[in-house]
Amino acid sequence: SGLVLVKNPHLDLMEEDVLYHLDLGTKTHNLPAMFGDIKFVCVGGSPNRMRAFAQFMQRELGLAAAGEDVADICAGSDRYAMYRAGPVLSISHGMGIPSISIMLHELIKLLHHAKCRDVTIIRIGTSGGLGIEAGSVVITDTAVDSSFQPRFEQVVLGDVVVRSTELDKDLAEELLACSRDIPDFPTLIGHTMCTYDFYEGQGRLDGALCSFSSEKKLEYLRRAYEAGVRNIEMESTAFAALCGLCGLKGESCRFHL
Amino acid sequence: SGLVLVKNPHLDLMEEDVLYHLDLGTKTHNLPAMFGDIKFVCVGGSPNRMRAFAQFMQRELGLAAAGEDVADICAGSDRYAMYRAGPVLSISHGMGIPSISIMLHELIKLLHHAKCRDVTIIRIGTSGGLGIEAGSVVITDTAVDSSFQPRFEQVVLGDVVVRSTELDKDLAEELLACSRDIPDFPTLIGHTMCTYDFYEGQGRLDGALCSFSSEKKLEYLRRAYEAGVRNIEMESTAFAALCGLCGLKGESCRFHL
Repeated sequence: SGLVLVKNPHLDLMEEDVLYHLDLGTKTHNLPAMFGDIKFVCVGGSPNRMRAFAQFMQRELGLAAAGEDVADICAGSDRYAMYRAGPVLSISHGMGIPSISIMLHELIKLLHHAKCRDVTIIRIGTSGGLGIEAGSVVITDTAVDSSFQPRFEQVVLGDVVVRSTELDKDLAEELLACSRDIPDFPTLIGHTMCTYDFYEGQGRLDGALCSFSSEKKLEYLRRAYEAGVRNIEMESTAFAALCGLCGLKGESCRFHL
Repeated sequence: SGLVLVKNPHLDLMEEDVLYHLDLGTKTHNLPAMFGDIKFVCVGGSPNRMRAFAQFMQRELGLAAAGEDVADICAGSDRYAMYRAGPVLSISHGMGIPSISIMLHELIKLLHHAKCRDVTIIRIGTSGGLGIEAGSVVITDTAVDSSFQPRFEQVVLGDVVVRSTELDKDLAEELLACSRDIPDFPTLIGHTMCTYDFYEGQGRLDGALCSFSSEKKLEYLRRAYEAGVRNIEMESTAFAALCGLCGLKGESCRFHL
């Protein structure tokens, strides 16, 4: 049916669903009227960048004059920022798995309540590249954890539940085909490694703590490269797992600075 | 000596240390002049609340007229917000362990470069209470994970390193003593449980996914209460571990809405 799936039998029994961190709700807002025609959702870490992206989409779609401002739909909350440009929603998710998970839970319920159909979600932003040219874009085929395994471990009531982190292969190919029209950005499909920490977790030598040598770091990153990892960031496994479970066609495209 | 410890031999060899997510650096800013006299750092999730807290501290310390604005020291970055009021720094950390970890790594390096001494760091904000009166303040003695263990598991180059999550007991008692002067808020010392997820991870029934019954949820929360847990949030284990390792006297005080 193309509808977004919510896998929670308790939701139907609730009189009101408050999307706390988005400052939206089923009683306070007419979600089908506000969002029913959304077809694309683009998400990224930084609120300023997601505002700039919405303004860019407005211009590309011929919806507004250059420089015209967009309104933050979640202005009542400072947790996330949300903008729209025609059928495209642009939302920030902050940094790390817990932060993107809260946003995705509430976004998925939002799309469900709004009765949206055939929604595609794309994560955009920057990441650290691995053995690739600076300025490259990596389209993720599979998100992997810090042991290079295609899995997301979620703790539910103290027990670990393991979830798949495959992303939509057809969408990845479609995005790769689009990239051929833009000669400035080398684009490739590869695995994306997701870590819980930016400094020690990604083998960086410039954190407040660092207990390893640069040789050990290089040996680890070499093993990651051999396992197919082409970039490193902090949200992809949770993004892939949640999109997959809720029937959202999802992809992740990250620019290597 | 009271100095903040940085446990990274690589840092001394670097010509410049860029604190990327704070938009500060050792070559672009005179960190000792800007921050050398800081004695207290208060951190919390929301940027707006941390601004309001800095304004409150300015008034309490007689440094500014009511309503006077404070400037965001990290205005060039939209990842975190930072304000100061006399010897007090007020910084937002976003939601979840990865987000607070990035901020703490860079804050600890900032305090180190600025040669601050005898700094106390206090995490403030809201949390979900467990078997306590709404409006209570919980001062954390020990942060525990979702198995109620006093540990923080950090992945370093793919290997799990286990860290202690004890907080400063004397500071907890000092804060409890302060609370006796304010009759409006019941205040207690207890364990704080830290999760990686707000919905499934905290046994909530209102996420996009929920595979458990309300009975199983209650049974889990009962076990948490019996283990000494009095509130649940998403940053305390990483906060306790990083403060402990870097010689920062740290505490967490959370208000149960």
